[in-house]
Amino acid sequence: MRIGLDVMGGDFHPQAPLEGALAARNTLDPSIQIVLYGKQDVIDAFFDSTGASRQGFDIVDTPQVIPMDAHPVKGVAANPQSSINLATLAQREGKLDAFISAGSTGALMVASVMGLGLIDGVIRPTVGGIYPHASGHALICDVGTNVDCKPEMLVQFAVLGSIYMREAHGIAQPRVALLNVGEERTKGNQVAQATYPLLEAHPFVHFVGNAEGRDFSRHYADVYVCDGFVGNIILKFGESFYDMMVHKLPNDPDIQRFDFENIGGLPILGVKGHVIVGHGISGPRAFENMMYRAKEIVDVRLADKIQAVLAEHSPAKN
Amino acid sequence: MRIGLDVMGGDFHPQAPLEGALAARNTLDPSIQIVLYGKQDVIDAFFDSTGASRQGFDIVDTPQVIPMDAHPVKGVAANPQSSINLATLAQREGKLDAFISAGSTGALMVASVMGLGLIDGVIRPTVGGIYPHASGHALICDVGTNVDCKPEMLVQFAVLGSIYMREAHGIAQPRVALLNVGEERTKGNQVAQATYPLLEAHPFVHFVGNAEGRDFSRHYADVYVCDGFVGNIILKFGESFYDMMVHKLPNDPDIQRFDFENIGGLPILGVKGHVIVGHGISGPRAFENMMYRAKEIVDVRLADKIQAVLAEHSPAKN
Repeated sequence: MRIGLDVMGGDFHPQAPLEGALAARNTLDPSIQIVLYGKQDVIDAFFDSTGASRQGFDIVDTPQVIPMDAHPVKGVAANPQSSINLATLAQREGKLDAFISAGSTGALMVASVMGLGLIDGVIRPTVGGIYPHASGHALICDVGTNVDCKPEMLVQFAVLGSIYMREAHGIAQPRVALLNVGEERTKGNQVAQATYPLLEAHPFVHFVGNAEGRDFSRHYADVYVCDGFVGNIILKFGESFYDMMVHKLPNDPDIQRFDFENIGGLPILGVKGHVIVGHGISGPRAFENMMYRAKEIVDVRLADKIQAVLAEHSPAKN
Repeated sequence: MRIGLDVMGGDFHPQAPLEGALAARNTLDPSIQIVLYGKQDVIDAFFDSTGASRQGFDIVDTPQVIPMDAHPVKGVAANPQSSINLATLAQREGKLDAFISAGSTGALMVASVMGLGLIDGVIRPTVGGIYPHASGHALICDVGTNVDCKPEMLVQFAVLGSIYMREAHGIAQPRVALLNVGEERTKGNQVAQATYPLLEAHPFVHFVGNAEGRDFSRHYADVYVCDGFVGNIILKFGESFYDMMVHKLPNDPDIQRFDFENIGGLPILGVKGHVIVGHGISGPRAFENMMYRAKEIVDVRLADKIQAVLAEHSPAKN
């Protein structure tokens, strides 16, 4: 297995991704090759100054960088020799099994969709967020990739999110809830009201009804479906609580569970490949955990599993 | 001043509203008359069993009750002798200055809009939620009354919320932020993108840009504008954090600030009158504080202030 890592992405690059890669190398099976995508001189400087061994790493020199504030499409088009572009090309050509980046999420999404392509039947690719509970994790999907959603998109987030939670988190039949303002089926905005019966009728989705904002804490569902506007606000709101509480209760396991670095990152669901999106503020531990997340989805061949389910349940297309 | 209290509303009626009224009576100026709306026998039983004095209270017997699960319009229409209907009628006739209820929010909204009427220029009445920070409170508006919003509705929430925060919380020029997924003006769903320039151009609104989910904690704004779908989910999500944390840190002031009972309830903004909406799970302290909230908005004549601003800034109508 070959896992690519974007050394040029994230607020704390190159140290954070490289330190995360060193930690993962010491844990992962030696048969797993970690491929570092970044400027050769930057990578050389890190290894020279730290004295770390290059064993277990391949290095691909990527002379260009997509600026964080660039328009995603323009940034990808203008920088063919960037880490994101070269790694995407390598995965398309079968030379890489997965790629990890904490760079521009928009650019990573554009490069992945254009370079790897969408799985047949996928309306929009999506990225979820993880919400911890006492005995595991739930997925909130979408958390920002798709801010205006039609009901059929929300239904597909339910399908893609269920497959991810089944394959990567070992939940045989993930429970899906629609994030809403009340329990009753008639509650909600127009999109939520139109989505409810579609989720209820979908043969693959184990729909348990509407969830309210307070239901995250009680593990009401394994997948919470919402548009990326709501999901993004919820995710960042939850992070701010963690930031406030971790200083007060640094050793409390209920608080520690909320540390996003424990998860690291989430895959782009719906593309023909395996791409893990990291948080911009990822530290070494987040990058290390993203390596494990990448290995997990390659091990279960997540993209193939999605393709199989979509082929069987022929979703709405647009 | 005469403040009406719905004795029949809330999960813990009649004890919670009546105990809250007793506490408020001991604090409020004796010139303030508290009018209890409820079934005479229920109220009599409370006073008889507790031995509390009836001094400072008027009692209005309301033989009907609007069931919590009734359709708001039908529930209001079918129960003219309910506490909500009789108190609304009294306020319209000038016999009551404000009314407080933790009963069905939908029924209270319907009765208030139909019975008191909308202030000229109001597109939709709205109810906000309070979010505490280290030195005071911010308002999230809307939190569930309006789940599908056009840009001009969000702009009006900014105006109404600003007036409320100025008049009731003493903030001379409340800062208004648009709740969104990123800082940049081009971010967001279609409604948010269309709302940004309207807020920016509005002469009454002190617009400070987009706020993200993490910004609540740092008091970025005094009024956060969003549709009631997002606002409701955020509000309940925040409550669930409080519920989780209050057991761990019962004496921490940062946690205690999140106790909604400190505020009690929020006014319906946009109707020709003063109506405070309480949480269904309100306890005595929440009802006591709602009495103070009602007094505050009557003191400043909030509805008149809203009318004056809307007359000057002639908002969009539909």
